[in-house]
Amino acid sequence: MLLYLSTWPEVEAYLEKSQGIILPIGSTEQHGPTGLIGTDAICAGAIAHGVGEATGAIVAPTINVGMALHHTAFPGTISLRPSTMILLIKDYVTCLTRAGFTKFFFINGHGGNIATLKAAFAETYAHIGDLNIPHAQQVQCVVGNWFMCGSVYQLAKELYGNQEGSHATPSEVAVTQYVYPQAIKQAPLSPEVASGHRIYGAVDFRQRYPDGRMGSNPALATPEHGKQFYDLAVKELSNNYLEFLSVE
Amino acid sequence: MLLYLSTWPEVEAYLEKSQGIILPIGSTEQHGPTGLIGTDAICAGAIAHGVGEATGAIVAPTINVGMALHHTAFPGTISLRPSTMILLIKDYVTCLTRAGFTKFFFINGHGGNIATLKAAFAETYAHIGDLNIPHAQQVQCVVGNWFMCGSVYQLAKELYGNQEGSHATPSEVAVTQYVYPQAIKQAPLSPEVASGHRIYGAVDFRQRYPDGRMGSNPALATPEHGKQFYDLAVKELSNNYLEFLSVE
Amino acid sequence: MLLYLSTWPEVEAYLEKSQGIILPIGSTEQHGPTGLIGTDAICAGAIAHGVGEATGAIVAPTINVGMALHHTAFPGTISLRPSTMILLIKDYVTCLTRAGFTKFFFINGHGGNIATLKAAFAETYAHIGDLNIPHAQQVQCVVGNWFMCGSVYQLAKELYGNQEGSHATPSEVAVTQYVYPQAIKQAPLSPEVASGHRIYGAVDFRQRYPDGRMGSNPALATPEHGKQFYDLAVKELSNNYLEFLSVE
Amino acid sequence: MLLYLSTWPEVEAYLEKSQGIILPIGSTEQHGPTGLIGTDAICAGAIAHGVGEATGAIVAPTINVGMALHHTAFPGTISLRPSTMILLIKDYVTCLTRAGFTKFFFINGHGGNIATLKAAFAETYAHIGDLNIPHAQQVQCVVGNWFMCGSVYQLAKELYGNQEGSHATPSEVAVTQYVYPQAIKQAPLSPEVASGHRIYGAVDFRQRYPDGRMGSNPALATPEHGKQFYDLAVKELSNNYLEFLSVE
Amino acid sequence: MLLYLSTWPEVEAYLEKSQGIILPIGSTEQHGPTGLIGTDAICAGAIAHGVGEATGAIVAPTINVGMALHHTAFPGTISLRPSTMILLIKDYVTCLTRAGFTKFFFINGHGGNIATLKAAFAETYAHIGDLNIPHAQQVQCVVGNWFMCGSVYQLAKELYGNQEGSHATPSEVAVTQYVYPQAIKQAPLSPEVASGHRIYGAVDFRQRYPDGRMGSNPALATPEHGKQFYDLAVKELSNNYLEFLSVE
Amino acid sequence: MLLYLSTWPEVEAYLEKSQGIILPIGSTEQHGPTGLIGTDAICAGAIAHGVGEATGAIVAPTINVGMALHHTAFPGTISLRPSTMILLIKDYVTCLTRAGFTKFFFINGHGGNIATLKAAFAETYAHIGDLNIPHAQQVQCVVGNWFMCGSVYQLAKELYGNQEGSHATPSEVAVTQYVYPQAIKQAPLSPEVASGHRIYGAVDFRQRYPDGRMGSNPALATPEHGKQFYDLAVKELSNNYLEFLSVE
Repeated sequence: MLLYLSTWPEVEAYLEKSQGIILPIGSTEQHGPTGLIGTDAICAGAIAHGVGEATGAIVAPTINVGMALHHTAFPGTISLRPSTMILLIKDYVTCLTRAGFTKFFFINGHGGNIATLKAAFAETYAHIGDLNIPHAQQVQCVVGNWFMCGSVYQLAKELYGNQEGSHATPSEVAVTQYVYPQAIKQAPLSPEVASGHRIYGAVDFRQRYPDGRMGSNPALATPEHGKQFYDLAVKELSNNYLEFLSVE
Repeated sequence: MLLYLSTWPEVEAYLEKSQGIILPIGSTEQHGPTGLIGTDAICAGAIAHGVGEATGAIVAPTINVGMALHHTAFPGTISLRPSTMILLIKDYVTCLTRAGFTKFFFINGHGGNIATLKAAFAETYAHIGDLNIPHAQQVQCVVGNWFMCGSVYQLAKELYGNQEGSHATPSEVAVTQYVYPQAIKQAPLSPEVASGHRIYGAVDFRQRYPDGRMGSNPALATPEHGKQFYDLAVKELSNNYLEFLSVE
Repeated sequence: MLLYLSTWPEVEAYLEKSQGIILPIGSTEQHGPTGLIGTDAICAGAIAHGVGEATGAIVAPTINVGMALHHTAFPGTISLRPSTMILLIKDYVTCLTRAGFTKFFFINGHGGNIATLKAAFAETYAHIGDLNIPHAQQVQCVVGNWFMCGSVYQLAKELYGNQEGSHATPSEVAVTQYVYPQAIKQAPLSPEVASGHRIYGAVDFRQRYPDGRMGSNPALATPEHGKQFYDLAVKELSNNYLEFLSVE
Repeated sequence: MLLYLSTWPEVEAYLEKSQGIILPIGSTEQHGPTGLIGTDAICAGAIAHGVGEATGAIVAPTINVGMALHHTAFPGTISLRPSTMILLIKDYVTCLTRAGFTKFFFINGHGGNIATLKAAFAETYAHIGDLNIPHAQQVQCVVGNWFMCGSVYQLAKELYGNQEGSHATPSEVAVTQYVYPQAIKQAPLSPEVASGHRIYGAVDFRQRYPDGRMGSNPALATPEHGKQFYDLAVKELSNNYLEFLSVE
Repeated sequence: MLLYLSTWPEVEAYLEKSQGIILPIGSTEQHGPTGLIGTDAICAGAIAHGVGEATGAIVAPTINVGMALHHTAFPGTISLRPSTMILLIKDYVTCLTRAGFTKFFFINGHGGNIATLKAAFAETYAHIGDLNIPHAQQVQCVVGNWFMCGSVYQLAKELYGNQEGSHATPSEVAVTQYVYPQAIKQAPLSPEVASGHRIYGAVDFRQRYPDGRMGSNPALATPEHGKQFYDLAVKELSNNYLEFLSVE
Repeated sequence: MLLYLSTWPEVEAYLEKSQGIILPIGSTEQHGPTGLIGTDAICAGAIAHGVGEATGAIVAPTINVGMALHHTAFPGTISLRPSTMILLIKDYVTCLTRAGFTKFFFINGHGGNIATLKAAFAETYAHIGDLNIPHAQQVQCVVGNWFMCGSVYQLAKELYGNQEGSHATPSEVAVTQYVYPQAIKQAPLSPEVASGHRIYGAVDFRQRYPDGRMGSNPALATPEHGKQFYDLAVKELSNNYLEFLSVE
């Protein structure tokens, strides 16, 4: 059930049987010479829709722009500052809590979002605890990173070994190829690719990772792989979501 | 050209010939018993994509959640506070300005966003003016509200007269029916519908507009109307965008 | 009844019979070669005092500085950033709400304030709704722009036609001449005057509107016109205020 | 020279010979049963105008609302939170610094403003130092509290002894009587008046100081006293201002 | 009783008999050629520990970094901006108030903290008053500046006369020598030392006070003096604290 | 070399040979019935001092209070909100960057700080990149968590197996016993201890972990263990720091 294709009475009816909601969050950032700028949002959104179908959960609209400040020296990247993203998450969760939701399951497509999401959850619990909302103490937020699912990780290792890398990876590119086969990009990729540098500011990042990839070879990706990753992630995160709902 | 389906080298190439970008912005809010919660985001996104195709402009991912605090007493609504939205817009425009964009054309689907957008533009100009960006003084932001296009307005008047109302209107519902024909909703609509009340806080709003509509009869909407509105809006906003680009 | 010339017991007594308050808001910004920098505050303040006398309403001190960032390339302009102004309005309304006021009627002298005021109202309703104030849901804020009164607009059209322009207008200058006849300024005004450009940042604004006027000929203003505008605005806004009070 | 009665070319001319500006700041707060709510703004504004005349300095519009949170349990009080006031002061000084001003002399009518003003000055220096303004390092802000002038203090002691108190004092009431003789209020004042309690929150304040006075007997005030205080304050602060200008 | 060496059940037990807490606050800033950068934190911390022992009060960890923006042109200085410090104080006091504390006695080692502390207290009272905390109205914050104790001031005058100065003073250096005899520094001190300049921005400060001292001769300090100052401050502030507790 | 026991000329001299600095950060939070509230700050501070000695690095004062909102239902806990902590870290790093530091090595004692620290680093890089600081692009921040050192982790496993738990662990308690042998606490510890629950809000946390421990048996700790942990952490983090300095 997709929130944006629902009416408010449908949401009201949903809330009588569940207080859980899935919130996909991605990023709008460079993904190397062939990866789509929307990769993280596309993956998170598609997988979240799959989880919604599998579990009957309502799915919020995808948060397309996240915390990608270190990618902003590449054109096309859009990022919130962490302090803005904290306010955004707080606003989202507060609105939905007032309506009756208490179980917030973020399906995340971008490693760079994780720290700020966790900070935002802490800020949000404290904020909501100060409001006059009866179920404030039941509010729970968790983040499920599809690319860190055990099954996904293992398949990536099998298919790509250490060419999976850590950004603009073949696994995430594969998922976008599965979702948008019409948008498969070709570009020459140098065989050597930078890897292993820590992440600091945006200018520094582009100097260390000149084409945007971090140790990855996205040329290995195929739409068929993408479907496999998609299926594994949907299955594992669906289980995670249902378990999250079942624990008080 | 859709930003999220592009690579960063494609954006880099685009910037050599244009510094314009289209940013659709909607809202996630109740739209009466039959209107989709994503109505404003769906309309803004679809029309923005149409304008992008018609003009060759790059289109940013849709900002799905805007300023809808007055709708938050209806479940399913998500809103940023105006102060959060100002920061979000500032972050978006600042990132894109650093990359070389200077002409920001927001295609807006929600009346409630307009005031905050304008405030955000002013805040953003002042902010960017303080940074060391050579083209800072060329940054220009405008908002094009598809539902206020002259041609759209006239067709709505012809088709619906005063049953167009001002929220959950048949015209916007029609566009969503055209875009998502699989999500056309049916629900009983009382013939009387509240209208003419000013908008204050969320609880007050729901008391005055108990089913969420503001003077509208969305039962009049059809997907065919939706196509007409879509075509008119794309045409008129495409012209507006090209004119915006052409003026220094 | 002027708040600043009242004592707190007088305010306490006033609150027993009315919960309405008038808040004049202007701006401190350039108004062309002959217009006073305080024009918007002077007009808003004087008209608000008139409305207060006509209706028995209490009138708050004038907010002298508003949102005028686009005028800040002209010396003498002082502006709040929109985010600061939102906090200021929120603080004002919150204090007065605690005291028992619920009907906030802003009399505004500056078009550039409108968007930020509306954003501030939304932010304020949400904020106050979270506090433990019994009458929080009754809080209502509206803005009455004296220069957009129908009667004012019509007189300006009759007297000045299209030389009214949109900034440093003869109508507002006339009101200041009526209020401060000792401060009528003379300066050569070029017959050609820029008009029709959109408003972006401050540096851009001064380039497009080199003497600060926007399509106006303030040389047409007279103190007698000023009195006419004043009387019309006071009458129309007094009616608006009383109607605002009468509607629940 | 009053900023609000000046034009921008007049300010431009002024800046060629002086970079100093006087900014009156008051408060809108209860001043006991007979003191005007605008007392602090009235005193600061009137004295600032006097100093402007005596020294040829330009005078900004009075900041009518300051930091008076501890008075907000009395109706009619309006206060900024300190964090808001810091932003407001920063915005004012930043705008004026861009225009060329460097010497900011605040004439203050409210003890409760002093701490926040000083905090705001520190915040502002750091902020302006980060901007690309050539004369950023010359920016200097000082606060001149008229009620703490040596000559004023001495006269108050002579006239009122320990009945001067520390809030709603006869000296400040006298100045308002001199400025607004038509607004002299009468009300019974209990001979005993609370004094000596520390200031904490607003509810606590009203419990300790039930009629709003702090150890004062404002019934001693006369308009003639007011003129004396006014003259002394104008003279002393004019000297202070000129000295401030003369020191690099 | 030191908070950081206590367990939560010990704090719970403490709260049954007292709601008072001592919070030392210093600064991390240059103190001239021979003064320690931690001088203010060292003095405040040591004296607060002494007061805690003398009165049985619990002592919070020292806030090591305060408001020292004007010293930031000297390497080693770390400062919060006032707006950050307000948030920090608000967070501290809010947490402790929830736990049951109501009497907050800050022992301060840095003059530059005072204004921001007072602003923070006002902001905090207003914030806490909006929360659902039963004892919110009892929250009281005061600041005790050890260097402004009457007994301390008098001894400094006796020992150093006008060579006490106002920053990097022999009295505060003496206390650090008493606390950290192993860290007594020697460096040539010019006999002339700047004094009497107002404090503005950081660059300006270093220009006026090139070696960081303000009118002081810290070479006069001895550890024995330090013990005397320490004893006087502990005694006087202990009395102040107990009196603070005793007044409702 | 400890910053707080240094003078500014000593820091100036240090900066000529190194731009690295170590910043210990802990927390002030409950650590079960026997763990000290200052545990995380004590461990981080002591180990940081050790690393400073081993490497010749300068060590900043310990940040005693971090992000511990989830522990605030236990008395004695003090926490910054994540948004406050981001500002604090930004202020610290900005000040020190202006002075010439570029390599910021945070030694962290609290798992709950990690997410907010990472968010703060991203926010800080973006902020500093906008300032006019020549070496802005060289600024690098990393966090070294002593309790996650491989050698520490292994020893904890050997000594305590799964009784190490994840909060109020015997390993961290042991370090505090080594540093403060005079503050070893005894209290009955139930043999069963909650573990495995996710962390949400503060009230929820205390319900799930009633005595504050998370799966740990701190009764196993000894000062001798503490010395071992201390030595291992100092050694490993010293190597990490030196490696951090050596990489451009």
